Amino acid sequence: MTDIEQTPAWRALAAHAQASSHADLNTLFAQDPARANNLRVQGSGLLLDYSKQRLTPETRDLLLELARSCDLPQAIAAMFVGEHINKTEDRAAWHVALRAPRDTGFPDEVHTEVHKVLDAMAGFTDNLRSGLWRGYTGETITDVVNIGIGGSDLGPRMVCRALAGLESEPAVHFVASVDPQEMHDMLSRLDPARSLFIVTSKSFTTAETLANASAARDWLRANGAGEEDIAKHFVAVSTNAQAVADFGIDTANMFGFWDWVGGRFSLWSAVGLSISLALGTENLRELLSGAHAMDEHFRSAPLQQNLPVMLALVGIWNRNFLNMPSLVVAPYAQRLEHFPAWLQQLEMESNGKSTAADGSPVAVATAPAIWGSVGTNAQHAYFQMLHQGSDVLPVDFILSLAGDGPRRDQLVANCLAQAEALMTGKSAAQVRAQGISERLVTHRSFAGNRPSNMLVLEKLDARNLGALLAAYEHKTYVQGVIWGINSFDQWGVELGKVLAERILDELQEGQAGQHDASTQALIDIAKRPADL
Amino acid sequence: MTDIEQTPAWRALAAHAQASSHADLNTLFAQDPARANNLRVQGSGLLLDYSKQRLTPETRDLLLELARSCDLPQAIAAMFVGEHINKTEDRAAWHVALRAPRDTGFPDEVHTEVHKVLDAMAGFTDNLRSGLWRGYTGETITDVVNIGIGGSDLGPRMVCRALAGLESEPAVHFVASVDPQEMHDMLSRLDPARSLFIVTSKSFTTAETLANASAARDWLRANGAGEEDIAKHFVAVSTNAQAVADFGIDTANMFGFWDWVGGRFSLWSAVGLSISLALGTENLRELLSGAHAMDEHFRSAPLQQNLPVMLALVGIWNRNFLNMPSLVVAPYAQRLEHFPAWLQQLEMESNGKSTAADGSPVAVATAPAIWGSVGTNAQHAYFQMLHQGSDVLPVDFILSLAGDGPRRDQLVANCLAQAEALMTGKSAAQVRAQGISERLVTHRSFAGNRPSNMLVLEKLDARNLGALLAAYEHKTYVQGVIWGINSFDQWGVELGKVLAERILDELQEGQAGQHDASTQALIDIAKRPADL
Repeated sequence: MTDIEQTPAWRALAAHAQASSHADLNTLFAQDPARANNLRVQGSGLLLDYSKQRLTPETRDLLLELARSCDLPQAIAAMFVGEHINKTEDRAAWHVALRAPRDTGFPDEVHTEVHKVLDAMAGFTDNLRSGLWRGYTGETITDVVNIGIGGSDLGPRMVCRALAGLESEPAVHFVASVDPQEMHDMLSRLDPARSLFIVTSKSFTTAETLANASAARDWLRANGAGEEDIAKHFVAVSTNAQAVADFGIDTANMFGFWDWVGGRFSLWSAVGLSISLALGTENLRELLSGAHAMDEHFRSAPLQQNLPVMLALVGIWNRNFLNMPSLVVAPYAQRLEHFPAWLQQLEMESNGKSTAADGSPVAVATAPAIWGSVGTNAQHAYFQMLHQGSDVLPVDFILSLAGDGPRRDQLVANCLAQAEALMTGKSAAQVRAQGISERLVTHRSFAGNRPSNMLVLEKLDARNLGALLAAYEHKTYVQGVIWGINSFDQWGVELGKVLAERILDELQEGQAGQHDASTQALIDIAKRPADL
Repeated sequence: MTDIEQTPAWRALAAHAQASSHADLNTLFAQDPARANNLRVQGSGLLLDYSKQRLTPETRDLLLELARSCDLPQAIAAMFVGEHINKTEDRAAWHVALRAPRDTGFPDEVHTEVHKVLDAMAGFTDNLRSGLWRGYTGETITDVVNIGIGGSDLGPRMVCRALAGLESEPAVHFVASVDPQEMHDMLSRLDPARSLFIVTSKSFTTAETLANASAARDWLRANGAGEEDIAKHFVAVSTNAQAVADFGIDTANMFGFWDWVGGRFSLWSAVGLSISLALGTENLRELLSGAHAMDEHFRSAPLQQNLPVMLALVGIWNRNFLNMPSLVVAPYAQRLEHFPAWLQQLEMESNGKSTAADGSPVAVATAPAIWGSVGTNAQHAYFQMLHQGSDVLPVDFILSLAGDGPRRDQLVANCLAQAEALMTGKSAAQVRAQGISERLVTHRSFAGNRPSNMLVLEKLDARNLGALLAAYEHKTYVQGVIWGINSFDQWGVELGKVLAERILDELQEGQAGQHDASTQALIDIAKRPADL
């Protein structure tokens, strides 16, 4: 592709970044009383205040020019009509179709298929939650375990936790890791007669997932369930009917999806069955409807009023023009504790690449490191570094305003105060004015001018959560478009898988392979751990 | 302080980094058959293989020269004798004394005090676990909740999870966040008559912790416990006897510690009471003894054979000479899932600073961003970026070799394969040789040459865990010494607290404050969320 660094839009931004590199946020606020109003965008119940970023309306206009020069409007349209924007795998990335109501302009066959699966999920959910579905001893199901990994785990796990206040029986659990201990710990807490397992794997060949599913099946059998009882305790989210049947699952209880649903965009598909079971069909529909509202906003709002677009452009500014290598995400809501892990996969697996969609190298920095945790806890852990560390790390604060009473106010006050403190800082003169001992003055000063976004939702309900997640999905796509990346493949996970199979053979069969001396020595130690 | 960049040792490293910037790991292994053996260090049951780092024995020698030029041996000795190495707060950082057996060379009064508290913890643990301790209805305690935040939460939470296989009744839980939902969710699962709360706060004034403790006390009272029953359900880890008594806790059940125990180094003190209750006194002692063994190794091993020292120096190399802004930590053990969060506080709160201990600015980059998660899951989430992203992100792999059978082998194989794949990569020629379509060749190629550490433990037991944690503590101290930082204060958390109190007043009392326009607008929205 064209070297993006050489385009007029990119060069204009680079020149602007250099010219404004000494800009101080406190000064910018003092100079422009309309700043907070001008650098803010709302969409589908979410508010994004990006006025605490190190930019001005002029920066925004240059970023919008960059977006237009990358044909962003056309790229947005292409996603919605199902063009094969996943170029390397030659297919659509059509997760927006998963949350579209019937008859909203997608092709009939897509609407039909999507809603057939949603209806099947609703039927199964109602059966299980109403107690019609029974286990092998005739008892109802009290516990559901979703077995999946990556996109088959992080999305539904995050949503179920985020909406925990809405859940009722059955209790829904998640097991992902290949570490046998995790499934072991889980099974020790369950009653086999009252447990149901959802095996979530598109191909039904994911090693970790199949190993965990087999362990669960063995445990059921060891507890007296017969071969024919397996179908009462297992359902599948998959597209591989033969493998599902071979495992012992009735394919009537196999919930399918399509090759145009990427793993990290799949919680809206049948992968969300665990969400439906935990929260009920109505709440799942609300989640989808919130995401759909954000989709409509993303599709139709002008770029400058488009929340996901502005979220993406601010990120491009920080990453490519201010050279910030991380993005910290700090939700001020305990129930969003799994949000950072979901976001890590979304952004880093989508855009953690150095090859453009057309196969040429990308000349600029792509996805930053994304990490973070619930803000109130993080304040007592690593926020020290955000305030006084040697690198400037931008933060996305996510604030839900729901609830009332003093503790809600504490939560809100802490969130707003952290963003304020990062920006305003505290000068040596202010510290001295407090009468602090001279030898501590520099230790207790804060440089300030540290940028953040504030994303506000009125409350953390299913609808707003859907909108929030869709906003970050679209942000990711927009950044991919600007970097020229295909955000929907993940070729980088292949090599490790291949090498793991080779080492596994060597550990189990004992034959020697071809490795560097370090890997070889470690394999030898792994064969005789007592030597350590 | 002296500008470290201008010292001969630093300049030698900078010149060496420039001269060797094109070094390729595969070539280095091919050229030096002894490489894996030479770039490895063992201590207290742990093995660190750093031969997959982008360095040579010459680099190591230059790093060791840097360490010596920063008087590292003296700094290590100073920590053990209790010098006031926490200069800005004028006190010792004596966490090594917390895990020293009686009569191992620390001053008598330290040994006496430390072991008095350990003995009190053991007595209480035995009482509670044996069923002598009863709640207000005369029943035994089945559930313990540790209420604390930051260092009063992350350490014990991580240890209890890491050693989950050793736990028995009572079940121990952790509540940290100021988000009222977290305590609400916890209480809804507990029986008031059989629950005990540990309130962990040195000052007994931490807002989040006191709010959660009060919520628990109100819940007990609402469930029929009298004022005088509170002492049967609450104990304290604190030094503020008056506040503890005012809360309703019997000060006989207050477990103290000392101002020379920093929050993020405190799990070895009375803050570990939850560990003792979950795992029993013997396992806590094993944990301490593993840490002590690492302490002895750190104190006595020559720098080149010193595991924490080498871990630190490799980090300095990556951060300051190869300019890598992140360190990813990937444990291959589900039970280490909270390890990254603990490590984040340890390293980023300790060394996320720009002011040297003597008050002068630090001229070089200090703590990198530390983040990560359990490796098997991360492979299916963001490892794409580690393999093919635009930035090179070094990884610390942590591998426990315990267990047998095929799934243990899968775990080991995956861990070793990821490190191998990151380093060896896959050239375009290798991809073409597989007959891959030309348009996918660059997408499916891997640059390789991506560095990692491999930290191996035979098994994840209490003793090895203690050694692992102590190794990272000492790593952190060593890096602080080299950067000239006091690793034991945290002035950077103050400003946010002060501003939060101000905003809280405004939210509750309604008077207007002095803020930038963005913060003011957000406060206004928080007062009327329905306007959103």
